[in-house]
Amino acid sequence: MMGVLWGGRYTAKGASAVTDELMWAFNASLSFDRRLARADVRGSMAWARALQRAGVLSEEERDALLTGLRRIDDEFAAGTFSFVVGDEDIHTAVERRLGELVGPVAGKLHTGRSRNDQVATDVRLYLMEELAGLRGALRGLQGVLVSKAEAHLDVLMPGYTHLQPAQPVRFSHWLLSFFWMLQRDVQRLDDLLERVALCPLGSAALAGSAYDIDREALAVELGFRGVCENSMDAVSDRDMIVETLSWGALVGLHLSRLAEDLIIWSSAEFGFLRLADRYTTGSSIMPQKRNPDSMELTRGKAGRLVGNLTRLLVLLKGIPSTYDKDLQEDKEPLFDTLDTLAMLLPIAAGVVDTLEVKAEAMAAALDDALLATDLADYLVRKGVPFRQAHEIVGKAVLLSEERGVGLRELPLEEYRRLSPTFEQDLFRALDFEASVEARRVRGGTARGAVEEQLKRARALLSA
Amino acid sequence: MMGVLWGGRYTAKGASAVTDELMWAFNASLSFDRRLARADVRGSMAWARALQRAGVLSEEERDALLTGLRRIDDEFAAGTFSFVVGDEDIHTAVERRLGELVGPVAGKLHTGRSRNDQVATDVRLYLMEELAGLRGALRGLQGVLVSKAEAHLDVLMPGYTHLQPAQPVRFSHWLLSFFWMLQRDVQRLDDLLERVALCPLGSAALAGSAYDIDREALAVELGFRGVCENSMDAVSDRDMIVETLSWGALVGLHLSRLAEDLIIWSSAEFGFLRLADRYTTGSSIMPQKRNPDSMELTRGKAGRLVGNLTRLLVLLKGIPSTYDKDLQEDKEPLFDTLDTLAMLLPIAAGVVDTLEVKAEAMAAALDDALLATDLADYLVRKGVPFRQAHEIVGKAVLLSEERGVGLRELPLEEYRRLSPTFEQDLFRALDFEASVEARRVRGGTARGAVEEQLKRARALLSA
Amino acid sequence: MMGVLWGGRYTAKGASAVTDELMWAFNASLSFDRRLARADVRGSMAWARALQRAGVLSEEERDALLTGLRRIDDEFAAGTFSFVVGDEDIHTAVERRLGELVGPVAGKLHTGRSRNDQVATDVRLYLMEELAGLRGALRGLQGVLVSKAEAHLDVLMPGYTHLQPAQPVRFSHWLLSFFWMLQRDVQRLDDLLERVALCPLGSAALAGSAYDIDREALAVELGFRGVCENSMDAVSDRDMIVETLSWGALVGLHLSRLAEDLIIWSSAEFGFLRLADRYTTGSSIMPQKRNPDSMELTRGKAGRLVGNLTRLLVLLKGIPSTYDKDLQEDKEPLFDTLDTLAMLLPIAAGVVDTLEVKAEAMAAALDDALLATDLADYLVRKGVPFRQAHEIVGKAVLLSEERGVGLRELPLEEYRRLSPTFEQDLFRALDFEASVEARRVRGGTARGAVEEQLKRARALLSA
Amino acid sequence: MMGVLWGGRYTAKGASAVTDELMWAFNASLSFDRRLARADVRGSMAWARALQRAGVLSEEERDALLTGLRRIDDEFAAGTFSFVVGDEDIHTAVERRLGELVGPVAGKLHTGRSRNDQVATDVRLYLMEELAGLRGALRGLQGVLVSKAEAHLDVLMPGYTHLQPAQPVRFSHWLLSFFWMLQRDVQRLDDLLERVALCPLGSAALAGSAYDIDREALAVELGFRGVCENSMDAVSDRDMIVETLSWGALVGLHLSRLAEDLIIWSSAEFGFLRLADRYTTGSSIMPQKRNPDSMELTRGKAGRLVGNLTRLLVLLKGIPSTYDKDLQEDKEPLFDTLDTLAMLLPIAAGVVDTLEVKAEAMAAALDDALLATDLADYLVRKGVPFRQAHEIVGKAVLLSEERGVGLRELPLEEYRRLSPTFEQDLFRALDFEASVEARRVRGGTARGAVEEQLKRARALLSA
Repeated sequence: MMGVLWGGRYTAKGASAVTDELMWAFNASLSFDRRLARADVRGSMAWARALQRAGVLSEEERDALLTGLRRIDDEFAAGTFSFVVGDEDIHTAVERRLGELVGPVAGKLHTGRSRNDQVATDVRLYLMEELAGLRGALRGLQGVLVSKAEAHLDVLMPGYTHLQPAQPVRFSHWLLSFFWMLQRDVQRLDDLLERVALCPLGSAALAGSAYDIDREALAVELGFRGVCENSMDAVSDRDMIVETLSWGALVGLHLSRLAEDLIIWSSAEFGFLRLADRYTTGSSIMPQKRNPDSMELTRGKAGRLVGNLTRLLVLLKGIPSTYDKDLQEDKEPLFDTLDTLAMLLPIAAGVVDTLEVKAEAMAAALDDALLATDLADYLVRKGVPFRQAHEIVGKAVLLSEERGVGLRELPLEEYRRLSPTFEQDLFRALDFEASVEARRVRGGTARGAVEEQLKRARALLSA
Repeated sequence: MMGVLWGGRYTAKGASAVTDELMWAFNASLSFDRRLARADVRGSMAWARALQRAGVLSEEERDALLTGLRRIDDEFAAGTFSFVVGDEDIHTAVERRLGELVGPVAGKLHTGRSRNDQVATDVRLYLMEELAGLRGALRGLQGVLVSKAEAHLDVLMPGYTHLQPAQPVRFSHWLLSFFWMLQRDVQRLDDLLERVALCPLGSAALAGSAYDIDREALAVELGFRGVCENSMDAVSDRDMIVETLSWGALVGLHLSRLAEDLIIWSSAEFGFLRLADRYTTGSSIMPQKRNPDSMELTRGKAGRLVGNLTRLLVLLKGIPSTYDKDLQEDKEPLFDTLDTLAMLLPIAAGVVDTLEVKAEAMAAALDDALLATDLADYLVRKGVPFRQAHEIVGKAVLLSEERGVGLRELPLEEYRRLSPTFEQDLFRALDFEASVEARRVRGGTARGAVEEQLKRARALLSA
Repeated sequence: MMGVLWGGRYTAKGASAVTDELMWAFNASLSFDRRLARADVRGSMAWARALQRAGVLSEEERDALLTGLRRIDDEFAAGTFSFVVGDEDIHTAVERRLGELVGPVAGKLHTGRSRNDQVATDVRLYLMEELAGLRGALRGLQGVLVSKAEAHLDVLMPGYTHLQPAQPVRFSHWLLSFFWMLQRDVQRLDDLLERVALCPLGSAALAGSAYDIDREALAVELGFRGVCENSMDAVSDRDMIVETLSWGALVGLHLSRLAEDLIIWSSAEFGFLRLADRYTTGSSIMPQKRNPDSMELTRGKAGRLVGNLTRLLVLLKGIPSTYDKDLQEDKEPLFDTLDTLAMLLPIAAGVVDTLEVKAEAMAAALDDALLATDLADYLVRKGVPFRQAHEIVGKAVLLSEERGVGLRELPLEEYRRLSPTFEQDLFRALDFEASVEARRVRGGTARGAVEEQLKRARALLSA
Repeated sequence: MMGVLWGGRYTAKGASAVTDELMWAFNASLSFDRRLARADVRGSMAWARALQRAGVLSEEERDALLTGLRRIDDEFAAGTFSFVVGDEDIHTAVERRLGELVGPVAGKLHTGRSRNDQVATDVRLYLMEELAGLRGALRGLQGVLVSKAEAHLDVLMPGYTHLQPAQPVRFSHWLLSFFWMLQRDVQRLDDLLERVALCPLGSAALAGSAYDIDREALAVELGFRGVCENSMDAVSDRDMIVETLSWGALVGLHLSRLAEDLIIWSSAEFGFLRLADRYTTGSSIMPQKRNPDSMELTRGKAGRLVGNLTRLLVLLKGIPSTYDKDLQEDKEPLFDTLDTLAMLLPIAAGVVDTLEVKAEAMAAALDDALLATDLADYLVRKGVPFRQAHEIVGKAVLLSEERGVGLRELPLEEYRRLSPTFEQDLFRALDFEASVEARRVRGGTARGAVEEQLKRARALLSA
């Protein structure tokens, strides 16, 4: 087989020039770039119009091409487009089909255009659409987090650092911590979209088109916000894919941390949460099993997303500038990251949405030691320097551990032996609700502060 | 040894609590986080003021702390600060020294603050400064590219795709292709700085400070543009480091491609460029050697930058939310990426600035085959569909190869045998300057288009 | 939908338990683990026999299962096996089909076995077979390198370090440098196969089978060389996949370096080699093009192979011991690496085999400067310390550059001005063949040394 | 500054040739390759002897060099060696010092040798030594696991898959699962050492030494097991570093999984284990804290080890064959991985050794649901096909959950309603010790099977 778009120099030499089958398979990209079909058609329609405006095509030729392309688009939409053996890539397939539909004029469409600028345009058009969809999915997950947080504003739980009990927090506050991570993901997406939305078409193979193409008009027609400024860079720039894969990897890491919390908190020993049945699966041998597979796969897919990024970074390292065939390897990791996120985000939203919150189990896990900082703050408010207060309370904690009692059960005289500053009112400081409410600083876990966060979050969602 | 900031619970238990030496080394971060010294002091000074405004400190106490901190800052500036055995990290070292300087009031500084929010603040302050420096270095390299392009506007060379001769281009056009890559790097830097410039201070360990800290005022005082909105997220957010390392990796990949071009083009066989002596080194065994070590190291350091990114991505994968000690491993790859870029960018600028451009060697490498596309365009302009023109010219190229002559030497009758459309004027199309000038589309390689690029580039640099 | 192997606890609860569609798609692995079909059947046949030997099945039951499994194997071999909606993974599909074929006794096959040990066994059986195939492909490429080296033993070329001319070498010597890289790849493969060939079957879910399975006999029957020694490790061990992906990444890097040499050496400017037409492709816009796509894709696919490795490394990081669902993500990168190598190795063999070696172009590129080391060696043989000889010859090289002549054209008196040790016989040292022949040390580039390498290589290939 | 080993060609041109300061810093490797000092001296001593045997040096010259080198080695051992400004790398530093000590004859040492083969030899010598040390550290950790397992053979605990309770297991069985992971790490180390232990010396820059060096004798003298077979490969082969970093990354992942188990199991909610004080640290704000920092850092350092591997893989991708300066970037990740493992392994051994095992907490966590598989096995033994038994027991589990009782508390009549096969003896199957003892298959969790594992483990350790 041989490329229909570049065979001239080859066919002339006869049969020996025919690419062998394995090499054909190695080289061909149709198995994955067929996804770009409709973007490719859209780009070609705009190109036909641009060629006419540049005086390369007559109005009739343009219209013939547009009619043919519209028909091809319909075929893709209806799933009736037939690929044939010899279609090397999506561009070849479309051009071949166009020839069948409109005859020799099809051969004029590729004037002043190369597959180098064509594929770069297709990928950007495709990406703009897909990323808009993922933005919606991110917003969806954020919305679920906010709703869940609103619904459980009263629920207190132990807050952890190092997976050790730290201080009591609102469960809603924890939920919202993920809202803000995702908010950064949305911002990053908006930022990178600025760089996706630049049009490379008109750059041809590397040196720019030799026809009077109005590239700005072409860009506007295709929904871009501007044009790529240098043709050599334009055909070889894959930054927008690196950015997408970097972004996707970070989204995946955020979700992996959410998954880790949910997996641990839904263990029998923690028992804070219960995933809905639909997000768990059973065991082929152990009849009692109810495994959080949805969240384990979510955690695992972070590896996939990071691997896709690595793949592209290694690909780009040290290749000469302009277009090299290596770049064809950019599409599979891109598509895989987009597909993976399109699964992960709604799954996470479904899991959070249907999460059963076991507020009593959380309450039962509230241990007096979580109030040690409050006890130190009590001393600070009575004038003890914090560093000294920390030292004193450290000793109280140790004492309570040795006695096997909670800080609230340790008698006042024991406290006073550690520091005369302690008075009867110390026990008022040892209260979970009071501890939480003391953190009323912006971004803190007090009810008011969390309500303020919710307000800001809602505003962002409805913006 | 044992941490002076958290020993209370431990010292009480006596000698057995003492962390052993290896564990101390394993845990301690002073060897690398000492870089944050001045940021740490700056953050502490702002914190002291905030505590006073919150009524936690008297004005006298605040002033005492500020005086001590200023003295410490001077010691860091002068390089006279002495670390002592037992300084676990930079925060401990500063607090220890403050105690020596101002006495027990030093113990009040850590009120309502945790190392969790403190270190997050320090890193952000440090990053804002370092990234500003790297932005300047990027601009510097861009400036050199622009100047070099202005100086060599007349130089034509073969343009390559797949490292095979493609079409003639201006050397300046190639130089500017890197300007635009770096321009995206500058944009990305500006975008990520928006997310670096948020203040986590006041988030305490995870739940928010229990004191009435005005976090907005604190943020403004420290030069941030806003505050982190959720305390649990704030102490554990390392997105800004991931973003910096992603950004750095992409800058490194751009430079690796520049290096690849320069290494190949300065080979004996290409001979287009000659690196200045200072950017080459010799061999210990081969006396004639003149190796482009600067560019090889630049290409190699892309691995380092990608490795640093991988390191952080793996680190973050699947850890529970809020602060985990794993996060301490974030700093070394960050510092390494910043340092590496601080070397790479000026080296690249120096190399480009001092590059000897061998215009004659480039001209000598201009082969007629580079004009094949122009010949096809010639036919197109006479009404032949491009696809057919491509086929015809392919045959002409093959013929010229078989005859061992250039396209310009092939006689008209041979051309006419391939297509009657060819006429004597075809030879006017076979001209390198004409080929380049035909690409006058925006972003193309024609002189006017390159001059337009230069104008835009200069505008961006002086903005 | 719901897993047929674990639905008991779920169906009891009615419709609400039904996993939703997206979650089903997210969880199901059939789309990729169907590759393991025949390994799965083979493992099940051995398991049926082991259950009979353990007294769990009667001979009749065993035979019924074996008959059914054989039929299923035939269906897979013939491509007539029909998957149905609800087949969650390959194990479920086989068990479901077995029930259709042999009735209720099918329900006995899973006794004392879990999908955890079953899938680990399947993957190992599959890997043993695939790796044997790749070993053959490696040997094939090595064979081509050796044959090519034998055929071009007389061809000299410039040897490069830093892509700068270094010393003359035999082209065969360069070819063989890749033979030895691949030889290490073969060794590593043999090493890792030792660890693949251990049987996990009998480990059940995590604690070991509760039936008297003779695991050693089972392992032997399946072609393993031993058993996994700890059931908790056995179901969760993915080291053999990490090793395969690490190995594959390194093979890919070796091929990427081969590709880089071939791409550069087949550039117009070097012109040392010409790839066969079948391993090049043309351009859609530039009729003269002949791009080394095969080698560019080979270079690019190193990224894919490294990305697959990263994917698994990230996956495994920090997950709890024994089986976690995350591990299901191990298969896609494994299959992709195996498939990629199954393309890369024969392509590389084909490229090298059909390479046109342009000995005259190589000879023409032999520059006198390549003999500088020989000139220094000449002085050394006359008693000048090497360091001093290096210095003297460095000056000679500079002089020849300034004069624009080669070292062989510099007159004796000029040499003697640099060092009186130079005599007329110095020009005998300035000979490319002599230079090459002087390197007759083991592993050197002299004809004899290369012939010795060839002998060793042939011996390894025929071992 | 300028390299003393290659300056000849440069100094001749005067001051302009002087490498500028930044470039010097960029290029120099002394800051990290000084670690190779003693390996470098050892290699040079062997080289001096080889040169004498080859007739290049007289016995007197050799002895002078050896005396000087021995003195330099003493200086490194004593820490009194002084580096000077202008020492570009360790090789230059040693040669410079040698000149100071023994005069002009020092200039003969580099005869027929290049820094290319020299540094490759140094790294291999260094690696052989370091890896032997790490092998010992691995063995140490394995020994601690075995001892701990022997000491707690009676302790039962819930076994988990998916972090959900699965089946009861011996705590010792879990400990040993890590023994076997590490055993593979030891095997892999032994395998890779075979490839480290090959001597590149005599390969010179790329083409082989031009002197009659007996490379086999040289290799034996330096403790290698053979020689590198091709000089072009020898100077550029970094496989042994890739292998070391791959190996180190996998060791790190094993430790990250151990860390994850320990972090979760020492949480307040699990409470199965308590880390010794020395392996925990406190908080600067929360006085009660006792964080498992040692294990969190261990988990985090997996990122570092994977990052180092990535760094080298990216480095090697697509560079031309033989030596390129890029390769200088190989050493820092290598040293970092070796150092990191030299910390991680003893820390892990210390943590496991001093772990407080809370057998009662583990026993308290044994829930009846862990026996569901045993109940299914009970039915199987009475003739019910496993698949059906699994279904029946699934319903029993659901019933027990709904009733809020354990499987042992569900009355016989309820069981019989699910299946008439149930009889009074079913309750004998519902016993944790019996469940564990039923898994007596090789590699299972029964006491006998674990004792067998311990025997095999002890045999491996004492081999």
